[in-house]
Amino acid sequence: MNAIDELKCQKIETLYSKAEVYPYAFDTAPLKDDVTPPYAVVIPQSVFDVQKIVKIANKYNLKIISRGSGTCHTSGCKPTENSIIIHFSKMNKIIEINKENLTAIVESGVILGQLQYEADRFGLFFPPDPSNLKVSTIGGAIALSSGGPRTFKYGSIKDYVINLEVVLADGTIIETGKDVAKNVTGYNLTSLFTGSEGTLGIITKATLKLIPKPEYKLVTMAYFDSLNDCATCVNKIIDSRITPSTIDLIDKNTIDTIEKFNPSGLLSKEGMLLIELDGSKIEVTSKNDELKKILEKWGAVEIVQAKNEEENERIWNARRSAFACTAKLKPNAITEDVVVPREQIVPLINQISKMCKENNLTVCIMGHAGDGNIHPNFALDLSDKDEVARFNKVKDELFRLAVTLGGTLSGEHGIGYEKKKYLDFGIDQNAFEMMKKIKKVFDPKNILNPELIFNNDN
Amino acid sequence: MNAIDELKCQKIETLYSKAEVYPYAFDTAPLKDDVTPPYAVVIPQSVFDVQKIVKIANKYNLKIISRGSGTCHTSGCKPTENSIIIHFSKMNKIIEINKENLTAIVESGVILGQLQYEADRFGLFFPPDPSNLKVSTIGGAIALSSGGPRTFKYGSIKDYVINLEVVLADGTIIETGKDVAKNVTGYNLTSLFTGSEGTLGIITKATLKLIPKPEYKLVTMAYFDSLNDCATCVNKIIDSRITPSTIDLIDKNTIDTIEKFNPSGLLSKEGMLLIELDGSKIEVTSKNDELKKILEKWGAVEIVQAKNEEENERIWNARRSAFACTAKLKPNAITEDVVVPREQIVPLINQISKMCKENNLTVCIMGHAGDGNIHPNFALDLSDKDEVARFNKVKDELFRLAVTLGGTLSGEHGIGYEKKKYLDFGIDQNAFEMMKKIKKVFDPKNILNPELIFNNDN
Repeated sequence: MNAIDELKCQKIETLYSKAEVYPYAFDTAPLKDDVTPPYAVVIPQSVFDVQKIVKIANKYNLKIISRGSGTCHTSGCKPTENSIIIHFSKMNKIIEINKENLTAIVESGVILGQLQYEADRFGLFFPPDPSNLKVSTIGGAIALSSGGPRTFKYGSIKDYVINLEVVLADGTIIETGKDVAKNVTGYNLTSLFTGSEGTLGIITKATLKLIPKPEYKLVTMAYFDSLNDCATCVNKIIDSRITPSTIDLIDKNTIDTIEKFNPSGLLSKEGMLLIELDGSKIEVTSKNDELKKILEKWGAVEIVQAKNEEENERIWNARRSAFACTAKLKPNAITEDVVVPREQIVPLINQISKMCKENNLTVCIMGHAGDGNIHPNFALDLSDKDEVARFNKVKDELFRLAVTLGGTLSGEHGIGYEKKKYLDFGIDQNAFEMMKKIKKVFDPKNILNPELIFNNDN
Repeated sequence: MNAIDELKCQKIETLYSKAEVYPYAFDTAPLKDDVTPPYAVVIPQSVFDVQKIVKIANKYNLKIISRGSGTCHTSGCKPTENSIIIHFSKMNKIIEINKENLTAIVESGVILGQLQYEADRFGLFFPPDPSNLKVSTIGGAIALSSGGPRTFKYGSIKDYVINLEVVLADGTIIETGKDVAKNVTGYNLTSLFTGSEGTLGIITKATLKLIPKPEYKLVTMAYFDSLNDCATCVNKIIDSRITPSTIDLIDKNTIDTIEKFNPSGLLSKEGMLLIELDGSKIEVTSKNDELKKILEKWGAVEIVQAKNEEENERIWNARRSAFACTAKLKPNAITEDVVVPREQIVPLINQISKMCKENNLTVCIMGHAGDGNIHPNFALDLSDKDEVARFNKVKDELFRLAVTLGGTLSGEHGIGYEKKKYLDFGIDQNAFEMMKKIKKVFDPKNILNPELIFNNDN
């Protein structure tokens, strides 16, 4: 018997031929030279299947890589030598949406957009809203503590996870909390697993908090002749006690790139704020009057507002296509993710533009201005070694800059495989030592996503 | 040299005479027979003082008990043999309120109400709102992940802590995150420390998220002839997409007790919902019209609304006096704290009333109906051994009941010393084993709040 025989014995769907497993060597992150396909890909149907898989992996010294839809940008699903990928495509049931408790119980393979759609049918709302929501899974979003444009008002997914079912590295199944709104009964394991990138355990089920659905929303695009004016306006909006669900910022390169590949009627200006108000119609209408006055007073040169839900969606589709459009500029595209205190956004963006100009790199900058969370999207040709070298130099400078400005390496994409070398300066080293010890407690043999966050020599 | 000499050498204010340390044997929890005063009480002025204290405690094998204002209900500040109490009364500076970043940086001894007051002066708002906010500290509130009535709309303190400075058991100072709105850079140590009751490290400084202050609020008291009607109304309110900041529920005993000792004009009905709406004036006014219609339609027999900010405050003062008034019914009072899925609130309350009647106990029940978080306040005479026995029986039944209904042992008071025996059934035992291991990683010699959450034999 080998591991594959045992998996088959357990009636767990297993892919193991070269042709079947090869595609799982990759995720959204750019292609690597060192392609390592997994030993097998398993497709469990229940937590007990996952438990069996973990036990078999332990028996045969195999590593375990948890994979949602593979949309993460940090090679978080990259297999290692002798690894099994657990693919959650068949653990995709919405088990319950409970209107009275305002909760949803879902398996970790549920597509995030599907949950939003189903919650909507109950008049409820699940705010986390990453751009890839039509394909990404809840399990992956929890593993990376995903956010999206609505974080300014609604917080990121960590604010909505209230209980998790997790399979530990030895196959033990635990429940991290209870399906209740408040809980201070022992340590907050729920939050510890959220954002831990599958390195502490395998999330199989989640209880999520839902909220009543806002009855109305209104999207505004405000164009500016400078990013400074954009930033000033953001502060003035917040000062006036308007709390938009979204305050996204998009630079001229991003606008022009969207218009080139996905013409959406955006105007070619230095900066655009995409602002979404939501709430009751009377509230949104009243706040919108204030918002327009502020935008006009503080430098907006054009203001375009959606007239209905269809127009809202059209604008959002343009915004969500930004990375895909950037990817058409050159053979490859890489998105980065840094966060700074909000007051540092303009210095950050100006410096990124300068660095890219000096190093002859193509960058489209956008981000969640309300959160200080900026995504520079780089278009590049990974076969051009000189360009790759310049990109790596800029990336290093980018992360050092974010940290120097009081910020951090990731707001919603995680560390994964790609960013772990920056942890040397991106995190309190004594805190990092404690994280390594926590990893050892949960995964003493380092079999769960073993190359993520930590270096192998840890 | 002994520990006290060394503390004096380090110029750390130290109380050590019997008379000085005796008061620190107690906190808000009811008096015990086994009074153990601490060896010393130290009053640090900086994180470096705390670091020195921890090193001295290690050298002389002393335990360390962190204490805010001692208002917790679970004997969380109870000293043990050979313990030093760290008293944070002089680490009480609000270091910064940053309007642009929407953050406050505070030392852990800052009084929570003081932070609310100072934030208010900047047009900002710190929502967590425990009843004892005029005396309790931020550090204590973080240690217990405190909430209060506004959790339904705003979440509890864990949703507002974005970075912590912590002194570990060996004196190492760590920063758990960065002062930014979003962060997925390694494990979420911030949330791990929040609610850990001082057992993993000593919180010395916190960066907190603030939000724009709602411009207007309106408090409504709706009276009902049955608790069932109260619960139905709560569901109807949420169904209609109204999101009040508070939906508290108060039973007849509580109302009558408040009126007996702090006459506030409350009506003696079976149940009262205390509902606070906040937001812009136009929003609150519009939602209030809807709210009144729902209350009238679904069984409210009297609706009383505050006419101005002064009346809002008067109602809140009555509500916040509930426990103090209960304490006047008999020589002692004990408040408990359980959470159930919201749909289980009425079964929970009815069963508590029944158990108390059968066991001849005086109970006033109130709670945060929106969160499923119920506080039964018991009035009793701790010198009456029979009553104490009956109370202990009911307490045991109460926690078993909460767990049977899908709930948990604490929503905002923590486990402390008083509730740890219920962890045998109140928490997933495999998850609890992992918590014990985390405790061992952070505090291998078990010197930090050593009797809280875990039994000494762990």
